[in-house]
Amino acid sequence: MNSYTATATAHPNIAFIKYWGNRNASLRIPDNGSISMNLNGLVTKTTVTFREDSEEDVLILNGKSASYDALQRVRSMLNLVRTITGIKQAACVESENNFPTGAGIASSAAAFAALAAAASKAAGLDLDEPALSRLARHGSGSACRSIPSGFVEWLPGDDDLSSYAISIAPPQHWNLVDCIAIVRELPKSVGSTTGHGLAPTSPLQACRVTDAPRRLEICRKAILERDFDTFAKITELDSNLMHAVMMTSTPSLFYWSPASLKVMAATSRWRADGIPVCYTLDAGPNVHLITTTEYVDTIKKQVQEIQGVQRTLCATPGGPVSLTLSSD
Amino acid sequence: MNSYTATATAHPNIAFIKYWGNRNASLRIPDNGSISMNLNGLVTKTTVTFREDSEEDVLILNGKSASYDALQRVRSMLNLVRTITGIKQAACVESENNFPTGAGIASSAAAFAALAAAASKAAGLDLDEPALSRLARHGSGSACRSIPSGFVEWLPGDDDLSSYAISIAPPQHWNLVDCIAIVRELPKSVGSTTGHGLAPTSPLQACRVTDAPRRLEICRKAILERDFDTFAKITELDSNLMHAVMMTSTPSLFYWSPASLKVMAATSRWRADGIPVCYTLDAGPNVHLITTTEYVDTIKKQVQEIQGVQRTLCATPGGPVSLTLSSD
Repeated sequence: MNSYTATATAHPNIAFIKYWGNRNASLRIPDNGSISMNLNGLVTKTTVTFREDSEEDVLILNGKSASYDALQRVRSMLNLVRTITGIKQAACVESENNFPTGAGIASSAAAFAALAAAASKAAGLDLDEPALSRLARHGSGSACRSIPSGFVEWLPGDDDLSSYAISIAPPQHWNLVDCIAIVRELPKSVGSTTGHGLAPTSPLQACRVTDAPRRLEICRKAILERDFDTFAKITELDSNLMHAVMMTSTPSLFYWSPASLKVMAATSRWRADGIPVCYTLDAGPNVHLITTTEYVDTIKKQVQEIQGVQRTLCATPGGPVSLTLSSD
Repeated sequence: MNSYTATATAHPNIAFIKYWGNRNASLRIPDNGSISMNLNGLVTKTTVTFREDSEEDVLILNGKSASYDALQRVRSMLNLVRTITGIKQAACVESENNFPTGAGIASSAAAFAALAAAASKAAGLDLDEPALSRLARHGSGSACRSIPSGFVEWLPGDDDLSSYAISIAPPQHWNLVDCIAIVRELPKSVGSTTGHGLAPTSPLQACRVTDAPRRLEICRKAILERDFDTFAKITELDSNLMHAVMMTSTPSLFYWSPASLKVMAATSRWRADGIPVCYTLDAGPNVHLITTTEYVDTIKKQVQEIQGVQRTLCATPGGPVSLTLSSD
């Protein structure tokens, strides 16, 4: 009996210029490019084993058998790898997160980045970074950004080959910290995949997308020049733009909770007081407060005083997806 | 000594399709048309007296000398009336509201509708409804909608002559009620006039404006056909669109408070439970809950249970601006 196994770890990422809406939903070619930072310390670890004695794919998430929907999504990725390599075996996928899933921390990004790396390696492929990023994209768009290291830009492209992410600066380039104010740890009511499909129903999406190259340019330059003030303004604007589209789609999607709004308002006051901090929210109520290492303690202390904030989770810029091969 | 005096009363109005942003700021020619309902029971009463013994214009608001800024805005309207009529006298303007000012209830709309009517009449003019609506528009854009009766549409036009409001249905056409959930009675931090000027800085305003004729058509038809469900959806969408533009302007304007968000979320639940109710918010945190007479008590009871709601203020569809002439 032969089995082929590989283990990969990946970080979730937080987008400063957001991905929302697809030009091609089945290929996950996005309406606009995006820029993000990997989150060190938050890790998904995934082991994929193709085994001849298995009849069908199995998915174990945090020690438990996964739901049918989760398994189907993982199976699509495994099928892609089987198609490329000609491997016929079923796979056992075991995955663990050390952070809450489905609450505005991009758990699917880390999950599909780790899965793409582990599955392709277990199947004997040796993909380069762009190829791995493309493969991860098929599982979850933002997963392509969890493949390269540090500060990452997803080049939207216009077909499968041209749509992948690249590193624009290594983790040590800038001492940013993402302090996530966790306001609710429940899974969100509408997942991102469904949400992306609603983007075209908002009268505002076209304007958001048309303006995206301008925002990408400003954000990229601000990161490269470590210009916090410019970075803060464009990051908050971009978050507001995405939520504006969400709130004006049909049906409307409101991811902000009253506590999110309190934290956002407080962030503006803190920045006015001279603290380098800005907010950004993904498709969930948690508020990602981006600051620099010097101010982490101040921000943590202040944000925990806000009613509705349960705890904080802080992350520095993270490295790329990482592989450990072990076959028997 | 001659003096010419007139008194007028006007209602504020709540817009279902919102006015935000001007094509011509000095003439207040709006970027898009709007549709509103006058609010019966909420009244501004204004008396204008042109007197030969007065040296300069005086403004008394709710019994107190008004601020310099308020006086300047009133003076502009008086100057317009003096220019048209050739009257030279200074005026004494006394105005009273029976509702809180500057908190998302359109106090300036009622104020300038009443002022336009009282000042023009006191100066001896006998303006027809479109002319009065145009005059009121110069003081505050949305004031032009407080001139006609009941359900009102502001035809945006493209110059002074073509931009005025008309009644599309009388007050008794539909038994709607605006239950205003008052969450804070403080004056707002950024007034509407400044806010309108920021609209072009949002990347989303162009899309909001381009889509406006579609929304106006849907809303007008829903009102004429008393189709609550269609009315509810387009009204909430339009409110969200305006706030989306506000939140993405530079600087960003956030008028929603945590309590506003709670009321908005509850409104969706109530409608899902079969209650005809929808929300709309102007440039302030108060939530206007639009329902029908049968459901007012239910809505009042439920909304007052939400933390942060201080009280409610309910209004049925209101009549037009109204004049009382008394000269001595």
